[in-house]
Formats: sequence, structure tokens, C-alpha cells
Amino acid sequence: MTEFLPLARAARVAAHTLATAPRTAKDAALVAMADALLDAQDAILAANRQDIERGGLNGLTDALIDRLALNEVRLAGMADGLRDLVGLTDPVGEVTRGWTLGNGVQVRQVRVPLGVIGIIYEARPNVTADAAGICLKAGNAVLLRGSSSAVESNRAIVTALRAGLQAAGLPEDAVQLVEGGREVTDELMKARGLVDVLIPRGGASLIEAVVTGSQVPVIETGTGNCHLFVDDSADLDQAIGIILNAKVQRPSVCNALETLLVHAALAASFVPRAVDALADAGVTVHGDAAACALDPRIVPAAENGWDAEFLSLDLRLAVVKDLDAAIAFIRRHTSGHSETILTSELAHARRFTAEVDAACVLVNASSRFVDGGQFGFGAEIGISTQKLHARGPMALPEMTTTKYVLVGEGQVRE
Amino acid sequence: MTEFLPLARAARVAAHTLATAPRTAKDAALVAMADALLDAQDAILAANRQDIERGGLNGLTDALIDRLALNEVRLAGMADGLRDLVGLTDPVGEVTRGWTLGNGVQVRQVRVPLGVIGIIYEARPNVTADAAGICLKAGNAVLLRGSSSAVESNRAIVTALRAGLQAAGLPEDAVQLVEGGREVTDELMKARGLVDVLIPRGGASLIEAVVTGSQVPVIETGTGNCHLFVDDSADLDQAIGIILNAKVQRPSVCNALETLLVHAALAASFVPRAVDALADAGVTVHGDAAACALDPRIVPAAENGWDAEFLSLDLRLAVVKDLDAAIAFIRRHTSGHSETILTSELAHARRFTAEVDAACVLVNASSRFVDGGQFGFGAEIGISTQKLHARGPMALPEMTTTKYVLVGEGQVRE
Repeated sequence: MTEFLPLARAARVAAHTLATAPRTAKDAALVAMADALLDAQDAILAANRQDIERGGLNGLTDALIDRLALNEVRLAGMADGLRDLVGLTDPVGEVTRGWTLGNGVQVRQVRVPLGVIGIIYEARPNVTADAAGICLKAGNAVLLRGSSSAVESNRAIVTALRAGLQAAGLPEDAVQLVEGGREVTDELMKARGLVDVLIPRGGASLIEAVVTGSQVPVIETGTGNCHLFVDDSADLDQAIGIILNAKVQRPSVCNALETLLVHAALAASFVPRAVDALADAGVTVHGDAAACALDPRIVPAAENGWDAEFLSLDLRLAVVKDLDAAIAFIRRHTSGHSETILTSELAHARRFTAEVDAACVLVNASSRFVDGGQFGFGAEIGISTQKLHARGPMALPEMTTTKYVLVGEGQVRE
Repeated sequence: MTEFLPLARAARVAAHTLATAPRTAKDAALVAMADALLDAQDAILAANRQDIERGGLNGLTDALIDRLALNEVRLAGMADGLRDLVGLTDPVGEVTRGWTLGNGVQVRQVRVPLGVIGIIYEARPNVTADAAGICLKAGNAVLLRGSSSAVESNRAIVTALRAGLQAAGLPEDAVQLVEGGREVTDELMKARGLVDVLIPRGGASLIEAVVTGSQVPVIETGTGNCHLFVDDSADLDQAIGIILNAKVQRPSVCNALETLLVHAALAASFVPRAVDALADAGVTVHGDAAACALDPRIVPAAENGWDAEFLSLDLRLAVVKDLDAAIAFIRRHTSGHSETILTSELAHARRFTAEVDAACVLVNASSRFVDGGQFGFGAEIGISTQKLHARGPMALPEMTTTKYVLVGEGQVRE
């Protein structure tokens, strides 16, 4: 185990070089990193088998083992992910605003890298390469704090990525694995001045621990307790399709639907119809008292369960009096990720999108579209549910900050 | 003393109303608040006299008493500040990006208020009205955590501001004073979910306490250990003017010059010339060994003092070998506020602006231009020295976040 501070200082030095590296150098490094990953395939898969074996002995669930497991196809996907970044515009150097003061001083606001980014994540080795690639393309050094369950895989992947950096002539300390016990996470969270931002990627408890424990600025990602309100003016055929898509297409992700709100005026007819479709798709519906009274297949929802994500084929359902009640309900329970209204009334769409406070608000579309890939960003480091810096899907520009550059000819302030 | 939580919850409710308040309503409220301040002039000045009397008994310095003191002119200035906001564009509702997905779903990224903003500040009653006005114009509720030294003044000012809000038909809980001991500041810093962002305004120790103690996201403002490097290619007449302006025009503020770096090749001739001008302006120069050897008027700088702000008519001076050494020096000591190079070499200007990591980098101009007013923003809540969300002078747009609004016609994800 390396000590944390020397490693963070080395990342800071590497970040200085990366900050002025031209796009061609960064793109060449991404290609070299992809090549190095494939060159190291045997070592990486052998390391991964060690992690899986230890995970089995330690009683990891099948779902966790599946997320941890690598194979040739997944590794090729990681390499392709790095290559895909080559085609994306470099955000660094973009002039976001510019003007000239009355006295002739030129002002430009320019995108620059954040510097050193810390990623704290769970036992998903693919995140190691994804996060390193995105940080690098935006000119940042990255400190990767992966899970101890994936440590052998992460070591092998990081070794390969660093070999790629070196082959391309960029500092290998731009990508570093942070190993060690819980006290190292604490050091990372206290490393103000050395680490510019922390991004936790994982479940609600990981995110909560980082958000409340860190002195380094954090970008909060991911928790999605997403609601969908079926207004009495909604197209009900469309509604069934959107609800199924939002719940069933990939239930384990943060933009999946967790709570369905149905306008009271159409509940008696629509709720049984929705439950038909949901039950056919294998979804268990957990209802409030009003919902349970409408369909015997609905099981009573846990009293205090309306704030949590299921991330499974389960859906809560509540009957609400009207649009006002739906907005009030969402305000009480939203995690600020993605909230949907199905309506044909322009005034209702307008009120819902204005009054519901979330990273994304949707009208007549599935919340599964809230995703960097779907948005056309070409990459995604996560979906921010906080309000500072970045909100919603985060891609390369969100991995930068800005700097004002003022150029004069001797001007002084009167 | 009111309890904190009910007050924060009331702010959240008020924020919901403000978020959808049209510009006309907010502008009318700003005018009403300005009127109410002037109507309450006698009460506010009487309250201020109480604070000043207590401050005198408690041994506040003359400088602090001066910052605390109000009079008719200063109060009129506060009212004018509120009225000036009326003329500024409302950032809320600005569409910052927008596109249409391949399947026809429209995506818009729209500016929306942050929600509830907490301001933690020192005994400057003018900040009470300034901050309330800026937060309100951007659609936010504000919790004002002023100093106990200014409590009577702040109470009287907030009472007037709330009367103005009420007269204009906006919720008076949009502006609230947070009173009580240190434990209330702790509550404010832990109020995740109720308070969206904290902005400390004041000295380095106040900012440090908030930045390290808060679980609510913080925007760090203000500390400015600003350097100026005189390159060997600089126009030396211009240099004297810029150095004097940056140091002397208003030494107590964060964009004032604190450390002068002089290229070794011109040190022998330039340092005595600079000290002539600085001494004439009443500035004490504190030098490193090389500087002290060049001019007997230079006093030795404190060994470990190169990271701090003087905020007075004092200036540190170090001789550096070249541009590389200047950049390395600045990296060691910068607070990330404003850093300046004086040069006629394009390549040096380019390297300095690219390699120095600060909110603002300047070429051949005084760092005193780093200011929301000078930038033409019309208002300023502070100068951010952090990299997340906002960096450099912050005005109305920086008091907002964004929200993605997606509008479809039944689209689902394949």
C-alpha cells in the first residue's frame, strides 16, 4: 500500500502537465490506454478471477459478483469506451463568454480542467477505465478509490492504463489507484487543496457517506426516486407504454420509475388496467390504501417507504386528488433526479415543469431518456442530483471549470 | 430567538413561490424593499447606534466599528443597490442549451433558482440588504446569518425588507434573519435538503470554518493572496503604475496585490525604482533575502508568511529566476484568486495564463479589475475561489442552477 499524500501530490503535478496537453496528445493517450488494456487481457482476467474467488468466499451476492466479473467481451467494451472518447470534442479551451471592458481590457471566460478528481466507487472494474478516460479527456488527473472487493482487477487495469499513458508520453501519475482501508477514504475526503472534487458513484449509502463526510467539494450523483404522474388529461394508451418502459426496461438504474401517481378522476378505470400491464411484465405493485381498494393484486406499500428506490421489479402506486396534490407529493418524496407528467393540457405541463424541482422534468416521455448517452453526450460520468456546478447527466464539459483571462495594455482602475 | 428548523422550512415554502414568480413581481418587490428601508430609516439608524455602542464597550476596533456603522448616506446606498437590481436581466428562465433527440423528444436546459441560499457574514449590515436583493432577483429565498455584533441593525433592516416583500405580495419568509449562538450556525451547516447552498462572506477564518464544517454545499469566496510577476520583457513604466494601482487603490480588498515577483535579470534596477514609488505611497515592502540585498528600505519578510493576505499597505517582494520560477512560486502560494503577469512576450503571456491555476489570470492590467461591478455584471455576491459551480466574480446567473426539461409525445426508450 502506498501512502495517500505522496500519491495525491503526484496527481497534482501530473494535472499541471495535463492542463496544457493538447487534444492530440490526450487522444493519442486514450488510444494507447485502450491498446494496453487489450494487451494486458490475460493479466486483467486472471486478477479478476482472484477477486471473484475471494468474493465467493466472502459471500458476495450473485448480483454483486456479476457486476464484478470481467470477460473478453466486457474488456473489449472498456477499450471501446476509451476509443469512443477520441471522437468527442475537447471541452478545454472553449471560450464560454467574452467581452471588452470600456477601457479596452479584454475579458474571456475559458474552460479549463478541474485539476485532480477523486472517484469513489463500488466493485465495478469497468468504472476504473471509464472514469479514467473521461477525466483524462477533460485534462484532469484522477484518483480512483475502488472497492477492496475489486482490488486485484483494479490494480491490473490501472497498471495497463498507466502503461498506455507512458507510451503516449503523458505522465502516468495522471491515473492512480487509491488503496487501503477506510482511513484512506477519510484522507481523500480531507484532501482540500490536493483534490479539487470528489464524485461518489454507487448506492445511496456510499453517496450519503461521502456527501456528509467530505471537506473536498462533492458532486452528488445517482439516487433516483423517480415519480410519474398520470394527469386526468393524459393519453392512457401512451401512459401504459411509458410506465412500462420507465419501470421495466432496466429497473436497476437511477432513471427507472419508482412511484406512479394516478389522478383520482381516472383511478378506478386506469389503475386495474395499469396493474394488468405491470403484472404481465412481472412487476409487483405496492399501493396506498386508495390504490389497494381498486385492485386486489396491489399489495400495501410500506408506511415509510415512499422515499427509497426499489431498483427492482417493484413499483409504488398512490392515488392523488389533482395536479396540486401530485406536485405536493413529489416535493415531499423526490430525490431530485427525474420527474414525469403525462398530460395533454399545456397549462398542466407548464405548471409541472416549473414547480417540480428536479434535475430533469419530463412531459409525455420515459424517464429512461435521462442519460448522457441518450442525450447525445457520448460519455457520462454520472447523473448529478445536486444543484451546484452540474445538474443532470454529466459529461466532458461538466468535468471542467472556467478561468477568466484578462488582457490589457497597462490599464489601471480609476 | 426563533428555532432554526421552522424558519428554514418556511424559507423552503417561500422558495417554491419565488421560483415561479415573474420578473415583474420580483422587481416590484425590490422597489418596495428599497422604499421600506428608507421609511424605516430612523428605526434602522437607532438600532445601529445600539450595535455601535455595544461594540465600543466590547472593544471592537475602529475599523470594525466603521464597517458596522450606518448613516443616512450609507442607508440610501443600500436602497439604491436594491433599485439597481431592477434594471438587471432576470437569469431565471434563460434557456442555456437545447436540442431535439433523434426520436423527436425536445430537450431544453433552463436556468432555475437554487432555492434556499444561506449567507454567513460578518458585522457589515449593508450585506444584509445586498445579499437579500441579489438572492431575491434570482428567485431564491435567503437565510441571513449575520454577526451578533450587528444583530440590532440586521433585525431592523430585515423587518423593513420583509415589509417591502409583503407590500409587493411576495412571501416575507423569503428573507429571514438567523439569530442565536454558534450552535445555530452548526444547524445551518447541517441543513441538507432544506438549504441548497451556503456562501460565507468575510475573512479567511470565517470561510475556512464554513468550508470545512458544512455538509450543505458551499461556495468558497474571497481570500485573495494575489501575485504579480514582472517579466524581463515588461514595460517598466507601465509596471510601476499597475503595481501601485493593484496595491494601493484599495488595499483592504481581496483583489489587491499581496506579493510582487521580479525577474532576476531586471531586479537590480527595477526593485529600487519600485520601492521608491511604493514608499511614496506609504507601502512597507517585505522582501526575501535577494530583495533585501537590493534596497535597504526593504524589511525581511516573515519566513512562513508567503501564503497570507496583508489587506494593508504592506507588500511582499521576491526575486525569481525566470518565468518558470514565477509560475512555480505562484503554484506554491496562490489562493486561486487573481494572478498577474506584466510582459510584452506573447509566448510568456500565453504560458502564464495557461499554467497558472486561478479564478482570474491577468496580462498587463491591474487585478483591481477582478470585480463584478468592473466586469459589468451590475451586482456581485462575492468572488468565488473554488472550482465548482462558479469561479471568479459571481452575479445573478451564478445564483441559479439549471434544470433539463424534456417534452415528448409518448416516446419510450428502445
